[in-house]
Amino acid sequence: MNTFDAEAGSVERRRRNLWRVMQPCHVAVIGGNAAEEAARQLDAVGFEGPVWPVNPKRDTIAGRSCFRAVEDLPEAPDAVVIAVPASACPDTAARLAAMGAGGGICFSARFAEDGDHALERELVAAAGDMALVGPNCHGVLNYLDGAVLWPDEHGGERVARGAAFISQSGNVAMNATFHRRSVPLAYVVGTGNQAQLDVGDFVDAMLDDERVDAIGLFVEGLKDVGRFARAARRALEKGVPLVALKIGRSDEAARAALSHTSALAGADAVYEALFERLGVLRVESMAELLETLKVFSLTGRMGGNRVLSLSCSGGEAALMADAGAAVGLRYPAPDPALAVELAKRLSIPADSIGNPLDYNTHVWGDPAATASAFELALSQPYDAAALVLDFPRAERCDLTNWRVAMNGLIAARQHRNVPAAVISVLPESFPEEDRAACANTGIAPLQGLREGVVALAAAGCYEPRRRQLLDEAIWPGPPSSESPTTEAVAFDEAAAKHMLADFGLPVPNGKVVATASEAAEAARAIGFPVAVKAVGADIAHKSELGAVALDLTTEDAVVESVAAMTRSLETAGVQATGWLVEDMVSDSVAELLVGVVRDAVAGPVLVIGDGGVLAELVAETRTLLLPTTPERIRAAIESLKSGALLRGYRGKAAGDIDAAVAACMAVAHFTEANAGHLAELDVNPLLVRPQGRGAVAADAFMRFYAPCAETGAMGQDSGKCVQDHVAQAP
Amino acid sequence: MNTFDAEAGSVERRRRNLWRVMQPCHVAVIGGNAAEEAARQLDAVGFEGPVWPVNPKRDTIAGRSCFRAVEDLPEAPDAVVIAVPASACPDTAARLAAMGAGGGICFSARFAEDGDHALERELVAAAGDMALVGPNCHGVLNYLDGAVLWPDEHGGERVARGAAFISQSGNVAMNATFHRRSVPLAYVVGTGNQAQLDVGDFVDAMLDDERVDAIGLFVEGLKDVGRFARAARRALEKGVPLVALKIGRSDEAARAALSHTSALAGADAVYEALFERLGVLRVESMAELLETLKVFSLTGRMGGNRVLSLSCSGGEAALMADAGAAVGLRYPAPDPALAVELAKRLSIPADSIGNPLDYNTHVWGDPAATASAFELALSQPYDAAALVLDFPRAERCDLTNWRVAMNGLIAARQHRNVPAAVISVLPESFPEEDRAACANTGIAPLQGLREGVVALAAAGCYEPRRRQLLDEAIWPGPPSSESPTTEAVAFDEAAAKHMLADFGLPVPNGKVVATASEAAEAARAIGFPVAVKAVGADIAHKSELGAVALDLTTEDAVVESVAAMTRSLETAGVQATGWLVEDMVSDSVAELLVGVVRDAVAGPVLVIGDGGVLAELVAETRTLLLPTTPERIRAAIESLKSGALLRGYRGKAAGDIDAAVAACMAVAHFTEANAGHLAELDVNPLLVRPQGRGAVAADAFMRFYAPCAETGAMGQDSGKCVQDHVAQAP
Repeated sequence: MNTFDAEAGSVERRRRNLWRVMQPCHVAVIGGNAAEEAARQLDAVGFEGPVWPVNPKRDTIAGRSCFRAVEDLPEAPDAVVIAVPASACPDTAARLAAMGAGGGICFSARFAEDGDHALERELVAAAGDMALVGPNCHGVLNYLDGAVLWPDEHGGERVARGAAFISQSGNVAMNATFHRRSVPLAYVVGTGNQAQLDVGDFVDAMLDDERVDAIGLFVEGLKDVGRFARAARRALEKGVPLVALKIGRSDEAARAALSHTSALAGADAVYEALFERLGVLRVESMAELLETLKVFSLTGRMGGNRVLSLSCSGGEAALMADAGAAVGLRYPAPDPALAVELAKRLSIPADSIGNPLDYNTHVWGDPAATASAFELALSQPYDAAALVLDFPRAERCDLTNWRVAMNGLIAARQHRNVPAAVISVLPESFPEEDRAACANTGIAPLQGLREGVVALAAAGCYEPRRRQLLDEAIWPGPPSSESPTTEAVAFDEAAAKHMLADFGLPVPNGKVVATASEAAEAARAIGFPVAVKAVGADIAHKSELGAVALDLTTEDAVVESVAAMTRSLETAGVQATGWLVEDMVSDSVAELLVGVVRDAVAGPVLVIGDGGVLAELVAETRTLLLPTTPERIRAAIESLKSGALLRGYRGKAAGDIDAAVAACMAVAHFTEANAGHLAELDVNPLLVRPQGRGAVAADAFMRFYAPCAETGAMGQDSGKCVQDHVAQAP
Repeated sequence: MNTFDAEAGSVERRRRNLWRVMQPCHVAVIGGNAAEEAARQLDAVGFEGPVWPVNPKRDTIAGRSCFRAVEDLPEAPDAVVIAVPASACPDTAARLAAMGAGGGICFSARFAEDGDHALERELVAAAGDMALVGPNCHGVLNYLDGAVLWPDEHGGERVARGAAFISQSGNVAMNATFHRRSVPLAYVVGTGNQAQLDVGDFVDAMLDDERVDAIGLFVEGLKDVGRFARAARRALEKGVPLVALKIGRSDEAARAALSHTSALAGADAVYEALFERLGVLRVESMAELLETLKVFSLTGRMGGNRVLSLSCSGGEAALMADAGAAVGLRYPAPDPALAVELAKRLSIPADSIGNPLDYNTHVWGDPAATASAFELALSQPYDAAALVLDFPRAERCDLTNWRVAMNGLIAARQHRNVPAAVISVLPESFPEEDRAACANTGIAPLQGLREGVVALAAAGCYEPRRRQLLDEAIWPGPPSSESPTTEAVAFDEAAAKHMLADFGLPVPNGKVVATASEAAEAARAIGFPVAVKAVGADIAHKSELGAVALDLTTEDAVVESVAAMTRSLETAGVQATGWLVEDMVSDSVAELLVGVVRDAVAGPVLVIGDGGVLAELVAETRTLLLPTTPERIRAAIESLKSGALLRGYRGKAAGDIDAAVAACMAVAHFTEANAGHLAELDVNPLLVRPQGRGAVAADAFMRFYAPCAETGAMGQDSGKCVQDHVAQAP
């Protein structure tokens, strides 16, 4: 068996072992109080298999005789809750692995999250091919089969099918089970430190269970973006929506996540790009996450975002209009002929018929009239219907008339099979009984106006986006996920341009020379006007150093500029190793910034932004995962302010967008070829000229990691050493 | 008695009458089922005074003998619920007014909201000085004194003090009473069509009741912005916060609001400016509104926005960090010495102490340790403390440990009197009993993470903003609230500049001439380079018509340009009435757009934005109410992208911001002087030159309403007629 087969075998064994954990026939619980709590929870949910407590000091746990050691167990358990002191975990895991246990939920804490990475590595090694959840985790709740591996409170109940929720935070997972939202939760996982099994593994496992309708994620930071990407792709192919709440938009949250489960954070913009690329829907709160899972579980997918909104007051109609418009719902008006008939059924003027529709109170409390009006309204081609309804408190008011409205929608849907929801403006104003009445007929009882429209908007964009992504090439994962630790060495502009030009990035016609008179000669050969810049690895910020002279029109001007720049550099204590003389490009329509930054999670990513004056004033950029496509680059450029300039602004010439796209692709290819070593790259500005005249990199800069860089110097030698590692153009 | 005294007397009588409605000693209900429902609701809430039903056809209503007519009532009722057909309302109102009733809640619909403005006017006239709520309204709920004038369900209960909620939508008001949020509601008003009493009147009335802690508003569109402004100012002086949910951000919502209670909508940006100017806090959802009222009612005001966040997991800490940062909360870290001691009390590493603080689970369930740690944490100078806590469902889990955490905060606050809140991430996860435990100790039980931080942020910014606004001049209300209906007449650039220059707006040195040779002569006198532009009221868009020539450096160039422009205009079928020759300004640092638009609610408002290329690319503007101040104009300019240019961008010269502010003030003064007639004004661009060199209006355009404008033509004559109406500079 070669290495590849051995690895594949190991992956396959771990996968099988994870399934033993997810749907165990027997469970062992090892430890004291936490183990007892785990057994109690298994009993409470009605787990059907045997539960074996292991404790050398206690006689019984949860009414069962304790085994002294794992070796005494009747057979190798499918799942084990490990709640022993951290230092004892590796030994326990090793003994369980040796006897052929399926997997362990390591509830114990004080591993990497408290800085003890060595102990965590020891634990992973001890577990071998046994599935290992955690450490520092709450575990797995399987509400489908009644197998809860969770030594703590939880609020869920058995369901036949539903949504899964995978959370890096155990507490957030637990709190999610406390919802009063009629969200059928099939599985809940608190992944903890993800020392072995990570979010991607759990997503992958959930996809093997046909009873899972959608998967929610609480993400602090992904450990293995490639693994996650493969699982997300599988989810897309199967049509199981992934809905993520990714924290860390703020610096405070990013810090909190780091200190907490020790996952690498990565930049938020990179996650945004990742989720977009993988078809993962992103939400902003736990309430939005649960409502979105509810829609996918109860109503299935929507074809698009055209929603009919029904409410019995104009105030609610306006609230719905604002809330929906803010998240991209569309409210097409009913057609005029239908409006006339609908107005009749509602006893209101025809010109009051709109969408969102204030159906008014004339039919309030009238079951037949309500159902008839709703059925007519639903006959238009909407992707979903939403009835806005806040129930009074049953202990103070009579709910009859509210139920007439709700039942009107239920009745109308018997004839018009459109996805539908009832939305309460206040999340708490939806009685459990009435939520159940909706859910039982496939209507999502949504709680909270904002959360409700977010859920509908997510469901409305999922299918179109999915189809588009399935037509595109599969994203293979990041070109490099290692982060070199050696010092990075800077390349001067001339060297950077030379390397990038090899990959097809257009650079100005130019020449590096050593003296002022050679510069003048080069300028004459190139043709005036020219730009002259000092060259040298120390000269990163040329403008600030006074080391750039633009628009020179005579040889004398070139000679004088070189002299002036030499003086400026001397003042700054920096030395030029030469002078770059270049053709001056002055017909640019727009300036772009094309850069590469190295992300902690996704490795080198491409950043495209407005260049020139707009760069600092607008400071808008688009982040693209690598490898990328010309289509994605084009869309990024067109979405910038510069996009408006490039389309031809106020009657001016349009820019050569094709050339700009090609230039960005050249940078992308260069980056992929050098993904393991490139630290940073900056083409700024990329001058985009009028249509048909191309684009050209006016300036470039980059830094490389290389094995010989520990010399620390950024001189010729280390640069040369690095250059030996730079990939050649294909 | 002169007219003024008569009016003042009428206002005063109506004010007294409104108070009779708000706190009535006796109530009459007129009509059938709705009247009966109103009586039932009065009984349910325990109204102590007599309730007199009036119905000529029914013997009894709600167990009381009916009076045949209002004239048969034992005395003039303080409040009357009028629920008779719309056409009968004016007569009923007139008879009630004649007998000296306090006021009527006109529940009946089919008035202006259905297009019948005449009937609504008739009703208002009939009511005279009697207070009139509605029509098409739900009425008034007084939960302080148990006086509910509301012929429908509602969910509130008696309170000793609390928040008021004034809503243009009756249904939204009713739904608000259905909350399960422990918000003490003192008054709830559904204003309906506001034919007589409007939102401003109710705010003003609430301010007379010391039991009202804060006032919430659901606003579709204000009818009388001046009245509202006076009430808002009074609220600010008293320190009673106003919290508004204003719908109509989206076009759909603006349309819905218009069709619904027939209030004028006005532009959303104007409301934004209005609320800012008046110190009204704006929120985005009903949940946010209720949570904000809860904070003001239960914890009082906060000094600022520095919050200590406590949660027992890093996941929740990160959620809180993201949510708080998004709304402007600050989380200053505890000082290092305290962190060391706090870490000891929590049994966690000192470097894990941060803010938001993950206090971890080592003290979970330990009352003394929890209280001691919380008390220490609260010893730092925070403006508020927030404990993030989601309770399990009591029917499935044991809440003891959760209550230990909550009680830890309650105990800590006995020693540290800082405003505090407990926030549940999911709004529904906060048991009523535990909310009451918080509320009883002055801690706000906030429901929903997003809503909770919005409420804290609102409370945190209220007091600093209030102090600042009280130091400023009182906004006197809009300079004109009438909207002239005559056709508007355009002024050409030369005329517009001339009028604006009279008010101090700097314009380029220039001259209007009739012929090409006169133009050349003028250019020589002015000095080259010059700009030459065609003048004529028909020539609004000079660039598109080819009617502008810039940077002309010789007399020949001037003559040629006039010839070329003449040809262009002939092609377009337009005629120039002359040529404006102007000094060419070419040293501008930034270009601004200064305009005036006429808002449906606030009359003419000033709009300042980025000019030049940025105008279309960035499209950012600031709207300022008139009259305004130099400080507000300066802040507006500095907040634009152009602000960065004016501060001196990338080492370039800084711009003359003082001159830009003065130029905007000149436009503002001109607008105020002509508020009744100015339809539209546009100075674009205003060229802001380097510091000390001023600012100058490169182009200007305006339109005026005037009595003689019905000629329709925009020629000299109508222009002259309008000009007679233009105010002279002081």
